[in-house]
Amino acid sequence: MAQNVAIYDTTLRDGTQAENFNLSLEDKLRITLKFDELGIDFVEGGWPGSNPKDVEYFKEIRKYELKHTKVTAFGSTRLFANPAEQDGNLNALIAAKTPGITIFGKTWDIHVHDALRIELADNLLIIEESLKYLRPHVQYLTYDAEHFFDGFKANPEYAYATLDRAIAGGADCLALCETNGGTLPTELSAIIDAVKAHLKAKKSTIQFGIHAHNDSECAVANSLIAVSMGATQVQGTANGFGERCGNANLTSIMPALALKMGYGFTAAPNLHRLTEVSHFVSELANLSPNKYQPYVGQSAFAHKGGIHVSAVQRNPLTYEHMVPEKVGNVRRVLISDLSGKSNVLVKAKKMGLDLDSKDPVVSAIVKELKDLENQGFQYEGAEASFELLMRRAMGTPKKYFDLHGFRVMSQKTPDGVLQEEATIRLAVGGEEVHTAALGNGPVNALDKSLRKALTRFYPNLKEMELRDYKVRVLASEHGTEARVRVLIESRDQDSMWGTVGVSPDIIEASWQALVDSITYKLMKDEQNRK
Amino acid sequence: MAQNVAIYDTTLRDGTQAENFNLSLEDKLRITLKFDELGIDFVEGGWPGSNPKDVEYFKEIRKYELKHTKVTAFGSTRLFANPAEQDGNLNALIAAKTPGITIFGKTWDIHVHDALRIELADNLLIIEESLKYLRPHVQYLTYDAEHFFDGFKANPEYAYATLDRAIAGGADCLALCETNGGTLPTELSAIIDAVKAHLKAKKSTIQFGIHAHNDSECAVANSLIAVSMGATQVQGTANGFGERCGNANLTSIMPALALKMGYGFTAAPNLHRLTEVSHFVSELANLSPNKYQPYVGQSAFAHKGGIHVSAVQRNPLTYEHMVPEKVGNVRRVLISDLSGKSNVLVKAKKMGLDLDSKDPVVSAIVKELKDLENQGFQYEGAEASFELLMRRAMGTPKKYFDLHGFRVMSQKTPDGVLQEEATIRLAVGGEEVHTAALGNGPVNALDKSLRKALTRFYPNLKEMELRDYKVRVLASEHGTEARVRVLIESRDQDSMWGTVGVSPDIIEASWQALVDSITYKLMKDEQNRK
Repeated sequence: MAQNVAIYDTTLRDGTQAENFNLSLEDKLRITLKFDELGIDFVEGGWPGSNPKDVEYFKEIRKYELKHTKVTAFGSTRLFANPAEQDGNLNALIAAKTPGITIFGKTWDIHVHDALRIELADNLLIIEESLKYLRPHVQYLTYDAEHFFDGFKANPEYAYATLDRAIAGGADCLALCETNGGTLPTELSAIIDAVKAHLKAKKSTIQFGIHAHNDSECAVANSLIAVSMGATQVQGTANGFGERCGNANLTSIMPALALKMGYGFTAAPNLHRLTEVSHFVSELANLSPNKYQPYVGQSAFAHKGGIHVSAVQRNPLTYEHMVPEKVGNVRRVLISDLSGKSNVLVKAKKMGLDLDSKDPVVSAIVKELKDLENQGFQYEGAEASFELLMRRAMGTPKKYFDLHGFRVMSQKTPDGVLQEEATIRLAVGGEEVHTAALGNGPVNALDKSLRKALTRFYPNLKEMELRDYKVRVLASEHGTEARVRVLIESRDQDSMWGTVGVSPDIIEASWQALVDSITYKLMKDEQNRK
Repeated sequence: MAQNVAIYDTTLRDGTQAENFNLSLEDKLRITLKFDELGIDFVEGGWPGSNPKDVEYFKEIRKYELKHTKVTAFGSTRLFANPAEQDGNLNALIAAKTPGITIFGKTWDIHVHDALRIELADNLLIIEESLKYLRPHVQYLTYDAEHFFDGFKANPEYAYATLDRAIAGGADCLALCETNGGTLPTELSAIIDAVKAHLKAKKSTIQFGIHAHNDSECAVANSLIAVSMGATQVQGTANGFGERCGNANLTSIMPALALKMGYGFTAAPNLHRLTEVSHFVSELANLSPNKYQPYVGQSAFAHKGGIHVSAVQRNPLTYEHMVPEKVGNVRRVLISDLSGKSNVLVKAKKMGLDLDSKDPVVSAIVKELKDLENQGFQYEGAEASFELLMRRAMGTPKKYFDLHGFRVMSQKTPDGVLQEEATIRLAVGGEEVHTAALGNGPVNALDKSLRKALTRFYPNLKEMELRDYKVRVLASEHGTEARVRVLIESRDQDSMWGTVGVSPDIIEASWQALVDSITYKLMKDEQNRK
């Protein structure tokens, strides 16, 4: 398919302006390589003139050979006081030695007066001169017309003039920036039409792009509309990370362009990896992925309502706007308040349990489920605990040990050192063990002592490890007395499973999830031996 | 201003299809009253035919006198097998005794065949007959044309026919439903134009509405475009809660319609309460509000980048698309990785600290901040810990007690009972106390023993309480050894404050946040006494 639009990612620059979104140098390098694998056309890596971490990034990224991505350095027009060749910011861009450079300049007269505090004519001058100075040093030069839409609404003639000077300066592309995110789709197209008319009148064939923000929750729509009107560069970030309410979400824009609108770009054939890449970025930023996120969210193809579930079983098209696998996502059927028998049966089948809808066990499970959910249990991330619940209702599985008691002690000495110790007494088939372990926190100490005690009897527990431990406070009105939900994710060489525990006491909630996790591992191995 | 569009909220019905979004009967009643205060025109309360909890809701809500809101019951067209007067679902709608009823019917031929499994003509029949039967019993009757846009793309003539029969059945409004959320703004308007032309040709003056889902991240844009094309009813949910990726977000649609597009509706003059109402719904559902949410999110008017901060100081318009107070939100300046001195100075001023940008203390604070943030500290929700950090850098505040040590013990007996006890030794002005307390979990026990020890010396601690206790696991790769961040929110009669602690050990992290919280309270009271 023809390559008729370029994907320009600014997660590493504009994205890091987001609250709670911080990336280390290492993270930025790994994300760049991941985007190159996916086939992103431009990766804006940072602002070398403003941030030493970014200078470091450009030095490091040059050591890697990228298959496709054009790494791009971002910066502002020169200071009016400086001649271009003496402007630190412009020279930092050249020093970054990137195939792409993007320069932003002011479009909006109030910015020229209030932010730069210079004359309108002087702003036009620094736009043209900054670009002219950079032009010979770079392969692809983008001009970001900051606040273009607000500037246009305030003073269209001046907005045009800034574009004209960027063209004169030698820009390859004019990115129209909807910086404050306030422009609605109902006003956007008229402005783009006017710009196209202006460029036509000037007989300019320069390409234009779109850079939108999500303050009106319209960034994706505005970007798609702009591309449909001829924009050939679309700027945004992974998962829409960005200042305030975020940038245009490329994770939603790319599948719409490729799978719904028929546009071509290098990443288009790789969108079956979109979910993986989206979660990769969230994990490196240590943010849990947004489960409601379009296309890639855990809930994006999840079905809860009873009717939906049965309809989707018959024909997925009925309640899904696309095939989840095309973006690397999967269909999920949720266990929940609304869950009727049909949901439970679907789940059972997935677990290889053969249940009949008339079997009284099914109603019993649905009832127990509702009770547990009222206590705050959630099985959406704890399939293993749910399977154990079902199997217990069906009389299996066996109990692998009897707890006689445990004790967890945290002691802080006057010198401020805190130490945890857990002791546990349990019996397997009549034989009792009494062990102790130190730990890094009370739950870790308990976890270690429990495994130490059980590994004697079940050596295969050595294969499993706890991968993730999440705590959520349920009712927020009781301070430290609130109920907590603990979610534990475990894995061994061939699978991963989640378990859950709920209690006002974090030790008790963790204990429940730990015991479920170990029980699940032992049960799974027994079945595999069969 | 003329009332030219009706706001139709389905948080209580379609919204509750969202994963992790569950509301009790009590919650649903409280939300209805809150929406009535705000001036929402229609509140779709539930589906009495499908859910006993909803029958209860309609019985209860009738006991309240609402100022403005038309409570609406939702249901499907009758089963083909039943005559209307014997259809349980339709009679449940009548029994709900609501001023509004909304019936959904099938538009899309594959649904008629695969979901209903009846003939196309039979579907037309049940649409008309169901509406005719309900018409005399209700003040406002809406027809939800389910999957209208997908149905239209597949078979426009049949889609028109379903609308014609809904008109014949006596509907007041035809809500065009974008049920699967797959239709893009670039295709929506052509379909709406065609529908308008069809209605015109039929000489029908019936009103039409829009019901959009967010699977393509375009629900808000699609809704705004539809209203701009003449839709007089816009359906959606608070915060966009809803199945999969959510429904159209009324919390973003209302401010755009009223404050940007100039439409009139009853809630328009009350939008300064929008943030309050948005958070109210999240809190009742026990979900933490989405901080990046447009208009009402904590980050929606937050500024992180150094330049932005100084520009916003001079002229808020430069980086804000609207005045935050119009939607009940506020501007925030963030302390963060990118935070330069200017951010710190702004914060200091807010705290009444008079700092000079040349004061070496400022650079010291910025440096300490970066170190702590690298350890995982976040001050965005912990202003009190940040103030203490600043004051410590400036030599205040004094130390209110010396810790000699504490011990927290969790003991589980063979009968499964878990009990926590904390003992603590500390001294105030040379006088030592040694106390103990039982608690509901280790942190709660520690909290109680600490207060017990200190209240003897500082009786004003009785006025404060812990309101919220949040735990976040930072690095997710080390199971129970991961670092945790604890956020504590405290309050007394006249203020609220947040404090933070970080450690691989939840006891240690909690201890840090507890001590900051108490220190802040004591310092605050001292200053007020001055």
